Amino acid sequence: MSLIVQKYGGSSVADLDLIRGVARRSIAAKNEGHKVVVVLSAMKGETDRLIRLAKAASEDPDPRELDSLLSTGEQTSIALFALTCQSLGEKVKSFLGFQAGIATEGPHGKARIASIDPARIQTELAKGRMAVVAGFQGIGRGGDLTTLGRGGSDTTAVALAVALGADVCEIYTDVDGIYTTDPNVCSDARRMDRISYEEMLELASLGAKVMEIRSVELAMNYDLPIHVRHAHDPRDGTLICREDPSMEKTPVRGVTHSMNEARITLVRVRDEPGVAARILQVAAKAEIVVDVIVQNKSVGDGGLCTDLSFTVPAGEYSRTMALMSELTSELNAEAVVGDDQIAKVSIVGVGMRNHAGVAAKMFQALASEGINITMITTSEIKISCIIEKKYAELAVRALHDAFELARPPSGE
Amino acid sequence: MSLIVQKYGGSSVADLDLIRGVARRSIAAKNEGHKVVVVLSAMKGETDRLIRLAKAASEDPDPRELDSLLSTGEQTSIALFALTCQSLGEKVKSFLGFQAGIATEGPHGKARIASIDPARIQTELAKGRMAVVAGFQGIGRGGDLTTLGRGGSDTTAVALAVALGADVCEIYTDVDGIYTTDPNVCSDARRMDRISYEEMLELASLGAKVMEIRSVELAMNYDLPIHVRHAHDPRDGTLICREDPSMEKTPVRGVTHSMNEARITLVRVRDEPGVAARILQVAAKAEIVVDVIVQNKSVGDGGLCTDLSFTVPAGEYSRTMALMSELTSELNAEAVVGDDQIAKVSIVGVGMRNHAGVAAKMFQALASEGINITMITTSEIKISCIIEKKYAELAVRALHDAFELARPPSGE
Repeated sequence: MSLIVQKYGGSSVADLDLIRGVARRSIAAKNEGHKVVVVLSAMKGETDRLIRLAKAASEDPDPRELDSLLSTGEQTSIALFALTCQSLGEKVKSFLGFQAGIATEGPHGKARIASIDPARIQTELAKGRMAVVAGFQGIGRGGDLTTLGRGGSDTTAVALAVALGADVCEIYTDVDGIYTTDPNVCSDARRMDRISYEEMLELASLGAKVMEIRSVELAMNYDLPIHVRHAHDPRDGTLICREDPSMEKTPVRGVTHSMNEARITLVRVRDEPGVAARILQVAAKAEIVVDVIVQNKSVGDGGLCTDLSFTVPAGEYSRTMALMSELTSELNAEAVVGDDQIAKVSIVGVGMRNHAGVAAKMFQALASEGINITMITTSEIKISCIIEKKYAELAVRALHDAFELARPPSGE
Repeated sequence: MSLIVQKYGGSSVADLDLIRGVARRSIAAKNEGHKVVVVLSAMKGETDRLIRLAKAASEDPDPRELDSLLSTGEQTSIALFALTCQSLGEKVKSFLGFQAGIATEGPHGKARIASIDPARIQTELAKGRMAVVAGFQGIGRGGDLTTLGRGGSDTTAVALAVALGADVCEIYTDVDGIYTTDPNVCSDARRMDRISYEEMLELASLGAKVMEIRSVELAMNYDLPIHVRHAHDPRDGTLICREDPSMEKTPVRGVTHSMNEARITLVRVRDEPGVAARILQVAAKAEIVVDVIVQNKSVGDGGLCTDLSFTVPAGEYSRTMALMSELTSELNAEAVVGDDQIAKVSIVGVGMRNHAGVAAKMFQALASEGINITMITTSEIKISCIIEKKYAELAVRALHDAFELARPPSGE
């Protein structure tokens, strides 16, 4: 017998028929002898509808009131789930964030879970009953309702699973697992049976939208396996778990791309200490997240100057260009040039640590398709290249092919 | 400076435009120098929508889950109200039942307020701010959300006003006050400036749907004036307050009628102790509320038998008929006959206590219109007659006319 926390996203509980489907699934798991706790998001579209309503009431909605308003979304879905279970003959109680003992800290709209006292949930489990808990919400120190921000239901599920000492946290969604790359871009994309926390973190932050980063980090910290699976498909999905030797046999495990990038270059700034820091300082103050940074020494001027390039989210492009233009005279830069027609393609794999020649193979694969690389950045288990946007999909397919990701590795 | 609790019903907050209207009204009261606490119902139609949703999920919805679901209605309206106030430049916080310290006892769906700890509301008022509180809801001893039943927002407003020591509780609704009778039936109906708690209780229980009974009783117990007024009309409405000498000058202050009645007669039952008790026992066990009871001795059989008639709500008619038919042999009754084509008309007034001839005048007024009275029941400040349903409206107009209710009394 295992203790399982199941989380269903908004598209899995979008109407009463879908709710009945997932209720049957949860009850089936319980009937197999498991202890089951269910965490739900709001019904699909409900959170957006509430945000529209709030914005119609106030141009700049107060975060405290918005949190209280948005909390009704999960309050509704868990009550309907409990009622549906009862109509199927199963006794289930629903618990709001505060009733499930989920205490938060930090600002409204992006609160963090500070602690969980799952006493009431444990009481239900001890009685042999299922419990359904509202995702995304908790209660702050002052007794106000808080929300964890978008994707927060994943965090609720993982944190609750940790607090309850669950064996696994199952994340039910509208895809059947984590793929070697985006199946919309590459028809050869293959669902992975297992992926390490570290790989998932790199994939998540690079644009694979299946799992929210915070919840993967939390699961990693407590060594809690996460099983990502399709809400309406009984087959196993992908297990996000601790790295194991079989994973390391393959140098590259996934390819991702992001179109949401823009590059800005300060041309021929003085090559002296503090320049890069100054640029990042200005960006940080404006709350602009700088991703890849590359500094190129300009040749032919005695090494006094350098070109400094960095990327920002495409949505921050014009704002960053304006800020950097203000800096040109201060930094004695010759010009500020920008490009929002870029993309980032990345390869990820824990096996990279002990396989040589991975980068060379990546560059070769891109070069053989005539794709020019303008920036490169690497981490221990990832290599990213900035390329022209129009080549993004071609690059993904070329890399997926070059590293033979369509073929299941021997370990799986 | 007064402390005012304002309660707005669902039709007054049915959309964002209406919410803006009532928000302006509350802010205006605050700007006049008053301390203002606002209690809201759910937006019109929302509670019914949620009940339909619950019934679609489960034929017989669990009351605990239903309460949690229904609580979202007020949670939404108060958040939107607070956001609207903020967009109008006024700082307002919303408080759910449990945040406003409203502790309840008793079953889900019809909980009673056990106590109120208005500390958070008082803190807001002390800061010179308005507070808006969710009506209809509270928190039970075990930490579950509860609702007070239909009309419960009135109770929330009055109980909160009592707990805060408010000067007045203003109930804003879609009528502009309490009328001498139903204006839809009698075009001469006149809005009263003042009405006593006792009169209001008789009118409320007789079918005037403006105020919920429990809240009037509560206000009476704590001598809290209730001002019933129109949400979108700046003029004064009707003050429900302690009886004063001016009210007693007029014997009759209002006329009401109810079509929702049915009469059942047990013909020629034995006239011996315990028969009426037995009938009421059976009705009570089936949770059928018996209203008027009349016992008529049948003549010509040596006084051994009696006819026993009573009225029940029309919706309980067939069920009661079936129950009484089962009793016929036990009670040796000759027959059970029923009539659901009846109505009850009543006259109410605290002045009745010290005016003679009121009943005679009532019966005369009905007789002169050819209306036969089949049952009569009286209390200290009320006389009710059961008549044929088709005469109900005519009877109301005749009584309104006979007691000259269209003319303002000297005291107003």
